This record gives sequence, C-alpha cells and structure tokens, in this order.
Amino acid sequence: MSKSSGIISKQFTSFLVFAAFISALACSNQPQATDFDPLPSWNEGVAKQQIIQFVEEVTNPDSSKYVSPEQRIATFDNDGTLWAEKPLYFQVLFAFDLVKEMVEADPSLKEKEPFRAILSGEKEAIAKFSHEDLLSGLIGTHVDMTNEEFVKKAEDWLGTEKHSRFNRLYTECVYQPMLELLDYLHENDFQTWICSGGGVEFMRIFSEEVYGIPPERVIGSSVEMEFKDTPQGPVFYRKAELNSFNDKEVKPVNILLHIGRQPILAFGNSDGDIEMLQYTARQDLPYLNLLLHHDDEEREYSYTKGTEKALELAEEHKWTVIYISKDFKVVFPFDKE
Amino acid sequence: MSKSSGIISKQFTSFLVFAAFISALACSNQPQATDFDPLPSWNEGVAKQQIIQFVEEVTNPDSSKYVSPEQRIATFDNDGTLWAEKPLYFQVLFAFDLVKEMVEADPSLKEKEPFRAILSGEKEAIAKFSHEDLLSGLIGTHVDMTNEEFVKKAEDWLGTEKHSRFNRLYTECVYQPMLELLDYLHENDFQTWICSGGGVEFMRIFSEEVYGIPPERVIGSSVEMEFKDTPQGPVFYRKAELNSFNDKEVKPVNILLHIGRQPILAFGNSDGDIEMLQYTARQDLPYLNLLLHHDDEEREYSYTKGTEKALELAEEHKWTVIYISKDFKVVFPFDKE
Repeated sequence: MSKSSGIISKQFTSFLVFAAFISALACSNQPQATDFDPLPSWNEGVAKQQIIQFVEEVTNPDSSKYVSPEQRIATFDNDGTLWAEKPLYFQVLFAFDLVKEMVEADPSLKEKEPFRAILSGEKEAIAKFSHEDLLSGLIGTHVDMTNEEFVKKAEDWLGTEKHSRFNRLYTECVYQPMLELLDYLHENDFQTWICSGGGVEFMRIFSEEVYGIPPERVIGSSVEMEFKDTPQGPVFYRKAELNSFNDKEVKPVNILLHIGRQPILAFGNSDGDIEMLQYTARQDLPYLNLLLHHDDEEREYSYTKGTEKALELAEEHKWTVIYISKDFKVVFPFDKE
Repeated sequence: MSKSSGIISKQFTSFLVFAAFISALACSNQPQATDFDPLPSWNEGVAKQQIIQFVEEVTNPDSSKYVSPEQRIATFDNDGTLWAEKPLYFQVLFAFDLVKEMVEADPSLKEKEPFRAILSGEKEAIAKFSHEDLLSGLIGTHVDMTNEEFVKKAEDWLGTEKHSRFNRLYTECVYQPMLELLDYLHENDFQTWICSGGGVEFMRIFSEEVYGIPPERVIGSSVEMEFKDTPQGPVFYRKAELNSFNDKEVKPVNILLHIGRQPILAFGNSDGDIEMLQYTARQDLPYLNLLLHHDDEEREYSYTKGTEKALELAEEHKWTVIYISKDFKVVFPFDKE
C-alpha cells in the first residue's frame, strides 16, 4: 500500500467516522442518559419525582409499566392548569369587552344580567355569578357571526390586551413549569391534548405556538355551527345554541368522542376536572393523575373555591397534588427575566 | 504505514462504510427516486397521474405548490369510498341483526317501520327507506346500553359475519387501491382522517388495523353519551339522542370541530360528500378532490343513485373522478389471491 493511498484511506476513514457520527445523531430521538434536568423550573420534591418516575417507567420497554407510544395520551385542562384563571377566566374577560360592543348596538341589553353587572364594573356583583352562569350569559357575545370574524376578534384581543395584575399578554400568563412538562412529554412520545371548558376556537389561536399542541388536539366547549359555501368562500356561521359545554362529566365523553382512547396522564386544577381524573384512574394501564393547587398569593393567586372536592378526592385516591408555592421554582416565563 | 495497519484500516473502513450505509437506511424516510410504483393496484391513467403529481408537488420544498406537513390533511369518506356499501351500508346490516334481538325482547316492534320491513326480508320494502330513515329508525339498536357492550357486539359481528356476495368478512371488503393510497399518503407525511356517516365507535374497531388510521382521526356519527364512574369502573351509557349525524353540511362542521384545519385532499363517493369537497376546494393552498364512481357490476357494483349531484359538480369543478372499471386494476385485497 502506497503512502498516498494510506493517507486517502485515513482521510476517508475520518470522513466515514464523521458521517456515521452525524447519522447516529440525526437518528437519535432518545434523550441521552445524563444529568440533564427536563424540568428545571420545578423544585425537587415528591411531585417532580413522581412525574419523572412515571415517564421513565412507561417509556422503558424493559419495565412492567411500559406503555406503547400510541397509548401515551395525556390530557390537560387549560384555565388554571396551563395558564392562569384569575381574576376571571380570560375568555370571560374577552367576552366582557365584546359586551360593550353589543350594548352599543342594542342598548336594551344594559338592564339584562349578567350584562348589567358587567357594565357596572362591580366586582362583587360579577363574582355572584357562577362560571356557568357567566359563560351561558356571555355565549351571546360569541355567536351570530362567522367563525372567521370571531377568530379575528379573539386574535386581536389576545394580541393586544394585557392582564390587569401582571401587565402581560394573556398568552404570557402561562406556567413555565407546565411548558417544560409539555416539552418533556413530547420528547417522550406522549400525545398531549387540551381538554378544557374554554372555547375550542379560542384556545386553538395560541395552543400550537404557546404549548406545542396542534389544533386537532384541542377539545373545548363549542357552539353549533352552520356551514355554507358562499361566492366569497366557505363560511361557518356561529349559532346561538351550545353544542358542548366541556366541563365535569362532559370531559370524558368528549375525550371518548375525540380521542377514542383513555388518557394515562391527566392534569387538572378544579372540580370541573374530577370526571376526567376519575376516568383516567380507572384502567389496566399505569396512570398518573395530577392536580394543580393555587396557594401562592405572592407570585400568583391563592384560592380553594371550586376546587374543594377535587382536593378531597386527590387525597383519598393518592392523586399527585402540585403546590405552586413549593413545587414551582418559577411561575411564569417572564419571572425568569 | 505498515502493511498490517493498512489491512486494519481497510477492514475498519469497510466496517464504517457498512455502518454508514445501515445508518443511512435506518434514517431514510424519503422514498427513493426509483421506478417504484406506490400505487400498483391502480391502472395507469389520468386519476393515478393526478394523485401522484399532487403528492409530489405538495411534498417538494422547491415547488410553488409545497405544503408543510402539518397542513397535509386528507379526509376520506368510508362507506363506498374505503369499503363497499352494497347491498346496504354494512352498519345497517349489523343493525338488522340487532333488530332481531330487540324484537325478541319486545314483540310489539314487529309492526313498526322500518322493523316490519326488515323482518319481512323484502328487499324492495327496505329499499324504499332513505339511508337517513334507516339510520334514524335503527339508531335504537345502538343505544340503551353501555358503549363497551355496543363495541363488543360490533366486534363479534365484524369478526364473524360475511358479505352475502363476496363471502368475506366485511373488513376484507375494502378497496385495495385505497389501502395503497392511504399508505402512500402516510409515507408522505399526510395526516389521514376518516370523515363518514358511519358510527364513530363502529369504525374505530377496524380503522387502525385495516387503514392505519388511529382512533383519534376517525370522525363519524355519534349518539349522546352519559359518563358514570361506577364501582365496576368508568362507564359510558349510550343514550337515545343523536349527537351528530355526520353527513352533508355536517361533515365540514365536524372537520372544523375535530381537526381545526382545512383538508387539502378529500375523497368521497356520494352526494353526502359534496360539502366536504366544496370546503376542501375553497382555499389558498393547492388541493385535490377525488370522487369514486361505482361502475363495475362485474367486479363490484354499478350505481349512480345518491351520487348524481356529486358527479355533476365533479364535472363542473374538474374534481377527479375515479372509475372503478378503468382505474382499479384490482378491487379487493382478496382479488389478488
């Protein structure tokens, strides 16, 4: 072998080592076994430990708790679980702004509840309404228009209006630890879904960009729609009847309708999530139920109203409770700045 | 360089060439540019050519018609598009068998239509009912039981009952060219969905195994369900009210509800698919609308009833019509045996 062919061979070998290395890198979807922390904004503790242990077990083919990727369904409530829900559901605040427009067009609405209370701006009067009363009373602000018009209004509002306390866009008032959890689940081939009382068209505006959850994996409340093929293009007209109010026992029904598989991980924060957690807890596969508890007045909010029964059941059934005060190292993405 | 190190280097080089080759193979999801025919059961012709051209254009990043993978949504009708629909919708035949059980339990049903006609076995009497009449009349056979019971009955039926003409399980009476088209679309990162008048729970029994379409991508007709967490586990009780009859103008409404994106490819066969095709045709992205026409009495069936308007619109709007007689080289998978 001549010296020159030796050099070529050596260079070629180096090239191939490099090529094989790059190929291996490109192929590897497995997280490397290092000290890398997938949840840096979570404090060390039982909750973080249980989440990581669960994900490691269900993704380990040698574990008795292994679950195949197509069965790794995770469902998340949105209001109070992925983003904040105080002082009121953000979509209700959006509806309040639409109320003003509606009253301008039809002043007789001024005397009708919940419009009267909303226009008065009396927080106590508004607080008297249940979430259901508010949503059903306000559904009128989301209908009698095309879906395109509705989405445009909601996009404009989400792109400009800011949270009264945090002075940030509502889409910034999402929980940094939850964003990390979603990423962690995506990296481990979980299929994450939103299953929330929020309007499906409202949540889809930001679900992909903010959470990495594509539109087809958003389950929410919806109104009846009418399809028409018009000369200007296809139109969906939003009608005044509710199609589905995605809360409580309707959540598992809509999970069955949209997903057709039982989740193995469910994450909620209120009594409206109980049936979703109960559904997840009753199966042959390993599962993890998580409940976010808001107990940090300083960094976020502290409340138990509307979550009492869920907290009781979590204790009874050993569902994992996440306490914002002790489990969240950082609450919002802007806290890191 | 010594001779022996030259040999080692050569062996090592061979190993690396081999390793790089294997890595490249393992990594490659791209179809190779060869003469490989992705649709071998399709005859050469306009239809096959238009399908392949469309897929090649929307997946080619250098093409002006390129469409990103997340927007490559394809929706398929099931009855008469993916599997046969004669002598009657297969799910209607399943319901007929349940009618017999119901009449045993409640003999007064014998005198009620469509039960009377069904029990008489008079084909002409049955043929008088529209598909909607039959489905709404037969919805009673699918309710007042748990969803688990319903699915079990349907699984048993699909696993044993055979098509009267072809003497095959119904899940074998699927079109071989359509199976190849689904595979071809999956290989090209299309997200395929079923959007059909069939019951969602009925279609999910075989959609993944037969079509490679997972349960969450099946949109169908559905009844109202009630969720209960019982001591025996979570139960969905099928109620007598229809939630959604997924036909005609309801198809685009359910596509919006479940997918939240407009399809760029839609495939149907009857007037019930018109609105899905109209919806797909009206957008800024490139699209392909396909209509299967049953004109092969010898190998399958020949009929136009219930498809007249769709055929007219296909001609008017230049949607691609697929003629079973000339475009399908093979009709059913068992024809190849």
